[in-house]
Formats: sequence, structure tokens, C-alpha cells
Amino acid sequence: MSNPKQLSVQALQWSGHSLKVLDQRLLPETIRYDEYLDAAGVTEAIASMRVRGAPAIGIAAAYGVVLSAMRHYPSADWQAAVERDIAQLAASRPTAVNLFWALDKMRAQLATTDADPLAALTELAKQIHADDMAANHAMGERGADIIGAAKAVLTHCNAGALATGGYGTALGVIRSAHKRGHLQHVYADETRPWLQGARLTVWELAQDGIPATLIADSAAAWLMKSGKIDWIIVGADRIAANGDVANKIGTYSLAVLARQHGVKVMVAAPSSTFDFTLASGDSIEIEERNPQELLADCYLRDDSLVTAWNPVFDVTPAELISAIVTERGVVIDPGKNGVGSLRAC
Amino acid sequence: MSNPKQLSVQALQWSGHSLKVLDQRLLPETIRYDEYLDAAGVTEAIASMRVRGAPAIGIAAAYGVVLSAMRHYPSADWQAAVERDIAQLAASRPTAVNLFWALDKMRAQLATTDADPLAALTELAKQIHADDMAANHAMGERGADIIGAAKAVLTHCNAGALATGGYGTALGVIRSAHKRGHLQHVYADETRPWLQGARLTVWELAQDGIPATLIADSAAAWLMKSGKIDWIIVGADRIAANGDVANKIGTYSLAVLARQHGVKVMVAAPSSTFDFTLASGDSIEIEERNPQELLADCYLRDDSLVTAWNPVFDVTPAELISAIVTERGVVIDPGKNGVGSLRAC
Repeated sequence: MSNPKQLSVQALQWSGHSLKVLDQRLLPETIRYDEYLDAAGVTEAIASMRVRGAPAIGIAAAYGVVLSAMRHYPSADWQAAVERDIAQLAASRPTAVNLFWALDKMRAQLATTDADPLAALTELAKQIHADDMAANHAMGERGADIIGAAKAVLTHCNAGALATGGYGTALGVIRSAHKRGHLQHVYADETRPWLQGARLTVWELAQDGIPATLIADSAAAWLMKSGKIDWIIVGADRIAANGDVANKIGTYSLAVLARQHGVKVMVAAPSSTFDFTLASGDSIEIEERNPQELLADCYLRDDSLVTAWNPVFDVTPAELISAIVTERGVVIDPGKNGVGSLRAC
Repeated sequence: MSNPKQLSVQALQWSGHSLKVLDQRLLPETIRYDEYLDAAGVTEAIASMRVRGAPAIGIAAAYGVVLSAMRHYPSADWQAAVERDIAQLAASRPTAVNLFWALDKMRAQLATTDADPLAALTELAKQIHADDMAANHAMGERGADIIGAAKAVLTHCNAGALATGGYGTALGVIRSAHKRGHLQHVYADETRPWLQGARLTVWELAQDGIPATLIADSAAAWLMKSGKIDWIIVGADRIAANGDVANKIGTYSLAVLARQHGVKVMVAAPSSTFDFTLASGDSIEIEERNPQELLADCYLRDDSLVTAWNPVFDVTPAELISAIVTERGVVIDPGKNGVGSLRAC
């Protein structure tokens, strides 16, 4: 086993001819990179949650398109083959819009030429990756400005370096605020059923020397009632035109509870998370994963009377969000102010 | 492995000279009874959560006193030895008041005689056990009256046969309502970190032929928003004089969320759960268990920067409860109406 303390966390590594994906299902016990040489492999890596986190799966998909072009160009009908791979990548997971955003960008680049597309596609995928990292740092500073002197916050799931090109969205804000010296403590929901909080978030925080306390998801309200936290900071998988936010199941619960306890809610996400084609969060497709992700712990796998309902995301109405932070700017009270100001110029 | 379908679920079995305790930590995969011959063993069985659930630990403690008397009577100073065992049993867990209630009853019986106490103590412990079972059935009928034609409910943790002398408090209401033909579906929170919902509740329901759907604790708000449930039904570990209810961590969260979604909240508990010496829930001691119950899943056991906060219970204000159901009677809107009417005559 590698020593987690020595690891510079990177969910994705581009080798020039392959994509290395850190298998996040094994963390933090085991550090293992799987190397993918084609789009089918990247599709499987996304669908199986080896790589997860909305920005990270967008980046992974972009590299998947590069691998597809490397495999198929210049065979006959290579463009049709790449399009099939793009369709396959797009079907890997339904909720995070960054996936479709990245694929749209790659597809547009592909359409610009019939000649060798490899250099341009590679350049674009690397740019998407680098832009995401830069966006995270920008969000970190903006978010830290907003939470100001807050001493303790709660986060849900993992919106850290592992979920992005690096640094993190929600954890980027937390990292920046901690560097400034105000933020002293982070509470992390363990985040069932995949335990991203327990396995990924507190591990990332420990590596950065940020003290963290893990809690059961159901203890968050009791924590809020204790008055110990000022903000809840989360990422996002898709944000509709009215500011409604799809994020990890449990985010809606936290936002309702936060409002009742005078705790503020920040959503930090790159602008690629916005889906201005959807009027509201009601139209966001919510992935439901295999009930076995819950039933595996109850050993009743063959009982026809017992099933599980396993929605992966929920939608938080804009009215319950105090601030949405992107690399382009910030909206305070999106329920009142709308998010139109964050639309690309 | 026994076939769960064939098992008549009993958390506790009194043999006449020993207490057999079903090890609930192993359920539903393994059905194992451990046999205890002294109070120290019963104390350990309660502290380690082999037996859990407020009414069940009260009953177990009562039998523990019988075992103590069997061991020490008629040696010199046998009464002092039994008192020491009672003190040890009382220290096994701090929140459920049924434990102290049962021990007080046993102690009072002990004080009535210097002669052989065994027959009277045994009789009393069996009576406590039988009374609890009868109370559950009475609560089941009263609770079913109240939820009326509700088609689906949500429950949290396990307040079933396994948590009581048999039948259950919250699950007693659910069983009775299902028998009447109205209640068709039960959602069960998995209830981290011990997964009593996943391991115990859906297992009990399946044995009774009641269709159940397991959910992650953090999905409860999203379920409520879907409009699929009418009531949340839970048990209780202690109820203060103003109707505030201590119950499994997450109950407070559910009650706040229920109020926001127009879902009603029922607490079903025997009158032994009331602690009229406490003016409000603020005075209830909330057990915090070992952080390892959460950290064990994140493999960061030796990292000084990462800890866990593991409160086992929380307190729900009476104002958020729609009905408290006991074997003595029912209070609707305890926040308005108080619970004085449930005090023993």
C-alpha cells in the first residue's frame, strides 16, 4: 500500500497515449491507477464510479474522445466510429452535465476538419483539464471571500481534487479559506451509500493538514442545532437556468435543514455545470443506481419483499441556496437574483 | 445458518436459570443466541449492543437482576452484591430510561424482603417482559387508529420485535395497520452507523410479509418531497415531561424535514419511556459511542487530523411531533397539549 500522505492526489493522468484513472472505489486503502487505451474503457470507468465527480467525469470523457480518435483515425469512416464512442461516453451517467458539455466541445472540434484531428483534440482535452483546475482555484478565492471569518463548515460527498481536475470545488473553497487562517474545522458527512465523505473527503483534508470530523449523514441536523457550523459547502452536478441545483443525494435534505437552523448553503461549481436549456431542476434527470448498493449490507438480496430505492442525486431549489460560486462570478441568493449573470458572454 | 423465514423473532429468552440473548449485531446473516448466567454478562450484552432497543434493554436488565440474585443469595451481604450488579447494569448505556425504570422496579421488589427473593424477582422480570409485549399490541391498535388510511410510512432504526419484548413499538403500529389492510408499503432508513434499518427492520417486515423499501438516511427528504409517505413512525428512548423525545440519531432531522413537507410524525413508546423528572429534552444525556463505528469504514484510523462525532441519539422537540402513542393512551400534538395525561394514575 502506498502511503496516502505522500500522494499528490490526481484523479486523472494523461500519458500522451492513454488515460490513467485512479480507482476511487478502493481509496483510501489502496492507490491504484488503471490505464485506459480506448473510449470503451473510459466509459466503463465512469459508469462504474472508478472516476466520479461531475467535473472529473467531463475531463475523463474528453480524453476518452482523444483515445477514440487515436484508435479510429485514419481508418475508413473514422468520424462515424468516433461519434459512436461519444454516444457511448454520453450514456455512461445521466445527471452531471459537465459530461455532455465536454463531449459537445470535443464534437465541435472534431467537426472543424477532415484531416488529422489528434493534435487539436488532445490540445482541447488538456485545455478542458487545465481550465477546470484554474476554475477551482478562482472559485476557492471567491468562496473564501464569501464565508469570511466562518470557523467551521460542513461538506457532503466529495467535491475535492478527486472530483475535479484538481484542488476541488467545495473543497477548493475550504482549502482557500483554511489557508487564510479563519476556517479551522471541517465536518464531513460520510455520504452513503458510497461513503465518499468517509473515504475521500476526510482523506483529502488530512493530506492538506485540515482537521476534519466525520459524521453520519443523519447527524447533520443535530450538528446544525449545536450551532457549531456556519456554512454548508457542496459541489454540483447540474444547475438549471433558475438556479436549482442537482447534487449528491442528501444535499436537498441539508439545504432544508440549514434554512431551519440559520446555516448558510454555498454551491461551488464551474460554469460547465450550468444547463441553461433546463428551465428548472424539475427537468434534471436523476440517476437511480442499483438497489444492491444498499441491500448488500442487509443480506436480504433474494427477498422479493425487500427492495431499495437508490437515487444518487436530488435537486435543491435555488431559494434554499445562499450563494452559487463559479469561476466567472458569484450569485448571492440565486432564488431572488437568478443566475443569468453567470451565463457565458 | 438458520432460515430467517422460519424464525419466530425474540430478542430475549428466559430459560429459568439463564438469559438467552439474540446477538443482533450478526443479524440477519447469522442467528446466534448467547446464554448469560450472571449480571456482568447481561451488562456486557447491553453495552456492546448485542441487545438494543429501549424496551428490550429494560427487560434484559430486569432478568440481569434475577441472575444476580440467583448467584449471590443467600451468601453474606448478598443484597450489597446485587446492588453492585444493579449499579453495573445501570451504567451499561445512558440514554434509554426504560433501563433505569426496570432496575428501579427490581430494586423496589428486592427491598420488600430479607428472605429468599428469587421467586418474586423472577415473577417481576417476567411480568415486565409480558407487560411490554401487551403494551406493544395496545400501541399497535391505537397507532393504527391514528394513521387511518395511510398507505405508506417511513420508519427509522428498528423499533420492532427485536427492540422490545416482542411485536414492536413503531413496527407494532405498522404491523397492526398492515393487518387492517390499509398500509401497503414501508420505507425504512438504513440507519447508520449500525444499519438497524437495513439489518433488522426490513428483515422483520419481510418475515411478516410487509413490502419494504430500504433507503439511505439522506434520501428521506427527497422521499418526502415525492409525496409518497404520509407518516414517519418511530420509537423512543426517553420522553421528557414536556414531550420532547430522545430517539436514534436522525430522528430530529426527520421531524424537521417532515414539518417542512407536511408529513406527520408518530412516536410509539411504552409509558416506561417517560422520564417525568426531566422538564425538557435538554436534560437528557445523549450517548456518544466510539468514533471507530464511523471511522472503520474510512481506513484512517491512525490519522490524528481525522476524528468522528458519533452521537447515538438526538432530541426531537414536542412541537415537531404529531402524536405520541403509549399503551395508556395517546396525545395528539404534544407540543400544544402536553403529555401529563399519560402520567401513571
